[in-house]
Amino acid sequence: MLITANEISTFLGGEVVGDPEVQVHAPSKIEEGKEGTISFLANPKYEPYAYSTEASILLVEKSFQPTQSISSTLIKVDDVYASIGLLLDKFKGAQDTSFQISSMAVISDSATFSDKVSIGEFTVIKEDVNIGDNTVIHAQVNIGRNCTIGQNCLIYPNVVIYPNAVIGNNCIIHAGAVIGSDGFGYSKDDAGKYTKIQHVGNVILEDDVEIGANTVIDRATMGSTIIRRGVKLDNLIQIAHNVELGEDTALAAQAGIAGSTKIGKGVMIGGQVGIAGHKEIADFVQIQGKSGVISSIKEVGKRLFGYPALDYKEFLRAFASMKKVPALIKRINALEKQLAEQKDQDKQENKSKE
Amino acid sequence: MLITANEISTFLGGEVVGDPEVQVHAPSKIEEGKEGTISFLANPKYEPYAYSTEASILLVEKSFQPTQSISSTLIKVDDVYASIGLLLDKFKGAQDTSFQISSMAVISDSATFSDKVSIGEFTVIKEDVNIGDNTVIHAQVNIGRNCTIGQNCLIYPNVVIYPNAVIGNNCIIHAGAVIGSDGFGYSKDDAGKYTKIQHVGNVILEDDVEIGANTVIDRATMGSTIIRRGVKLDNLIQIAHNVELGEDTALAAQAGIAGSTKIGKGVMIGGQVGIAGHKEIADFVQIQGKSGVISSIKEVGKRLFGYPALDYKEFLRAFASMKKVPALIKRINALEKQLAEQKDQDKQENKSKE
Amino acid sequence: MLITANEISTFLGGEVVGDPEVQVHAPSKIEEGKEGTISFLANPKYEPYAYSTEASILLVEKSFQPTQSISSTLIKVDDVYASIGLLLDKFKGAQDTSFQISSMAVISDSATFSDKVSIGEFTVIKEDVNIGDNTVIHAQVNIGRNCTIGQNCLIYPNVVIYPNAVIGNNCIIHAGAVIGSDGFGYSKDDAGKYTKIQHVGNVILEDDVEIGANTVIDRATMGSTIIRRGVKLDNLIQIAHNVELGEDTALAAQAGIAGSTKIGKGVMIGGQVGIAGHKEIADFVQIQGKSGVISSIKEVGKRLFGYPALDYKEFLRAFASMKKVPALIKRINALEKQLAEQKDQDKQENKSKE
Repeated sequence: MLITANEISTFLGGEVVGDPEVQVHAPSKIEEGKEGTISFLANPKYEPYAYSTEASILLVEKSFQPTQSISSTLIKVDDVYASIGLLLDKFKGAQDTSFQISSMAVISDSATFSDKVSIGEFTVIKEDVNIGDNTVIHAQVNIGRNCTIGQNCLIYPNVVIYPNAVIGNNCIIHAGAVIGSDGFGYSKDDAGKYTKIQHVGNVILEDDVEIGANTVIDRATMGSTIIRRGVKLDNLIQIAHNVELGEDTALAAQAGIAGSTKIGKGVMIGGQVGIAGHKEIADFVQIQGKSGVISSIKEVGKRLFGYPALDYKEFLRAFASMKKVPALIKRINALEKQLAEQKDQDKQENKSKE
Repeated sequence: MLITANEISTFLGGEVVGDPEVQVHAPSKIEEGKEGTISFLANPKYEPYAYSTEASILLVEKSFQPTQSISSTLIKVDDVYASIGLLLDKFKGAQDTSFQISSMAVISDSATFSDKVSIGEFTVIKEDVNIGDNTVIHAQVNIGRNCTIGQNCLIYPNVVIYPNAVIGNNCIIHAGAVIGSDGFGYSKDDAGKYTKIQHVGNVILEDDVEIGANTVIDRATMGSTIIRRGVKLDNLIQIAHNVELGEDTALAAQAGIAGSTKIGKGVMIGGQVGIAGHKEIADFVQIQGKSGVISSIKEVGKRLFGYPALDYKEFLRAFASMKKVPALIKRINALEKQLAEQKDQDKQENKSKE
Repeated sequence: MLITANEISTFLGGEVVGDPEVQVHAPSKIEEGKEGTISFLANPKYEPYAYSTEASILLVEKSFQPTQSISSTLIKVDDVYASIGLLLDKFKGAQDTSFQISSMAVISDSATFSDKVSIGEFTVIKEDVNIGDNTVIHAQVNIGRNCTIGQNCLIYPNVVIYPNAVIGNNCIIHAGAVIGSDGFGYSKDDAGKYTKIQHVGNVILEDDVEIGANTVIDRATMGSTIIRRGVKLDNLIQIAHNVELGEDTALAAQAGIAGSTKIGKGVMIGGQVGIAGHKEIADFVQIQGKSGVISSIKEVGKRLFGYPALDYKEFLRAFASMKKVPALIKRINALEKQLAEQKDQDKQENKSKE
């Protein structure tokens, strides 16, 4: 795709300063900008690159006033960040709208879907699966018996969905993710041997959910593991049986939530965070990367840090003070010595008085 | 499956109070119970739900005496928890006993198995593989050359087993798990470049082992990485080369065991725990979630917590005291000031005496 | 493969002490050595096994002088560790050089490769992919549009490579790894809803890179996520969008690097380590397992430990002192009591003087 400065400016509602006919084929970072690309100046600390970049077009704020000469054509817009999002969408191109069911897929006769669905090679669709319109299922996917997949979904290669899952509309599931595997539940006999507890529940993903590559969501023992509208899960995350994640909650990579924990809406959970089982986390809580949360959090919007996690500022204070302990030990030694000396002295004084 | 209160009660050896002919098709949680389902009252704190649940049948302890009216038919049993396990098994239904080898699987002529085996679509079985009776291998699985798979195993889609692995009887391997990948071993030359060390060992899973989704077990450099009878591994776990896990040991999700570490039997390892390489962990040790173990543990049954992990109570004590350090600093400042003042005073007194 | 002591000794430039015609078929660990295998004595603490092993051949240092009788034939070499590497390569055998393109693979007409390439069953190769000579792509792999794969690469089953990735020569990618998935990037509106930011960048793996099983590398928003020559990644690792890993850097299992972080060359990162986003880590830095790094590290070769990570020795000191705080509290209590008593005494003395 080749597109002119003029076309981009019209699309973004901006203003061209320079050659309106210069063409670009891809976006680039300002410090790596090459001829034929469009770069962005959003963060003022990158301004020096504006004078050296080779990008053909540079997107800048309306208020930007260059202090040196710039070789790029400028497009001035109200909000550079928002414009980047729109442009990345444009360069990604429209979703392919020609749907195709591969003759190399194995699809149960009882599965139902219209001709506005794509199913890739070597994909297996089991009995009683229902798939919504405009959904694209890539190659080598496995969708178990009685699953429901919504409209406008995108399911990448090697995704495995166990039976009875319900996936909403506009969901994206990345390669290798597993939805609905058995929960980790056993009863232990007196000899210490484990007996498996069957899991007859399922997983529900509401609308607008995105699931990262190789992430795993276990199904409920009974009832459902529930991922609410708008939840975003990064890669390699573990969601155990009977967990519930509230609307617009986001988890960064390698986080793990143990069984039956309920997490509120708008919660932000950093990478590698662990949350113990059977806990409740209030809405809008923020948990710093790698923290370990071992109790319920009732305060809306609380920020947590550490292992075990404390209030954000309390953890930083405690951690800073931990580094001071070796010095404290020396000061206490000195105090004890001083006091002991004083006592000795007092004794001698008292003796001399006697 | 529709089943009456009477049938369930007979199956569990219980006693019906209410309509023996009422029918249910699924289990449910007491707080979510709907008509046509059977719920359970095991934990007394859920008793209020017994009076409001819409579940058609409610399973209760023999001793249970309702204090309000209950709309559900009751089934009274000796042990509600044990009955739940039995019922979940019943609702899950009998394992499908019609075996089928997909014509869309690619199976080496030298692989051996009876007609009591299922192999799914797009699965690849390489040379000299042997598969035991009543084993079900789902679609899109890859089993490498010379692997042995026992009887009654269940291998889910997208599992990859590298050559020479030995899998016992009654093993379950969940979607996306990888068994027998190369260990992470290199020699480093003077220039800092790595040369790969070949791994000629294998992985052995004894009987009754369950492996979670997307978990990885590396094969041994020489000899075997060994997972003993009854071990249960949750999802996204890393087991490095030459590790040995003792009988009935269980690891929660995202735990990782580094190379050549030997873990005893009956050990319980929490989620996201890390254990360093070349260590030994005694039988029945319990390690709290997210702990980091950097030395061998010789005491049977010891409980560990923290990073680096300490004795459970010692860690809690040390962690609690860490929070007190800022206050300690103030107290030491005050002591130092007091002592300094006292010295000044003593000096003045001494002066005045002179 | 059967091989004699004499052949091995000639291959390694060693010296036989014992029967030069004894034959072995596999390597073994010295404590598990059986007849027909070759074991190694590299670490002196294993010397007692040299006198009890049943291995037919034992590889020892030139300087080794047995103090008891040994049943194995000895081969004396200059460097046992280096010889092990050479021998493991020999036992692994030559790479299979008969190439084959499975008729059960689905390969785009626009993909280009010579007849010196293997492609396994149920693998999907999309449009405009280019594959170098001597590269082996196993079964059930998915390679997206416009990817370039170098020479002598080994790609295991179930690997998924998203479009536009560039893979160098001599790369190994283990089962279930995902290369080039969407980065975890969203913009958040005032109501807290996330809008996806499209990722138009790609992933570049330079030569000699190895990627572990189920590891995930996200592609860049713009530009490239770059894994430099010789990097080794263990299993279940997360590499976020726009990360750069320097030459010969190695990461142990379950480590995670957040977005846009740049890591130098020769860096060693332990298992389960987390590094925050937008940081820079200098060359040759060493990070202990499970550490959490939340700021840039500028000192070449620095060793780090802890969460949050400190200088290695400082962390050990701080951690050791943390355990002493409960005792410190008692000492401060005692000091305060002593001082209070002394004050009382002084008061009384002063009173008695009045």
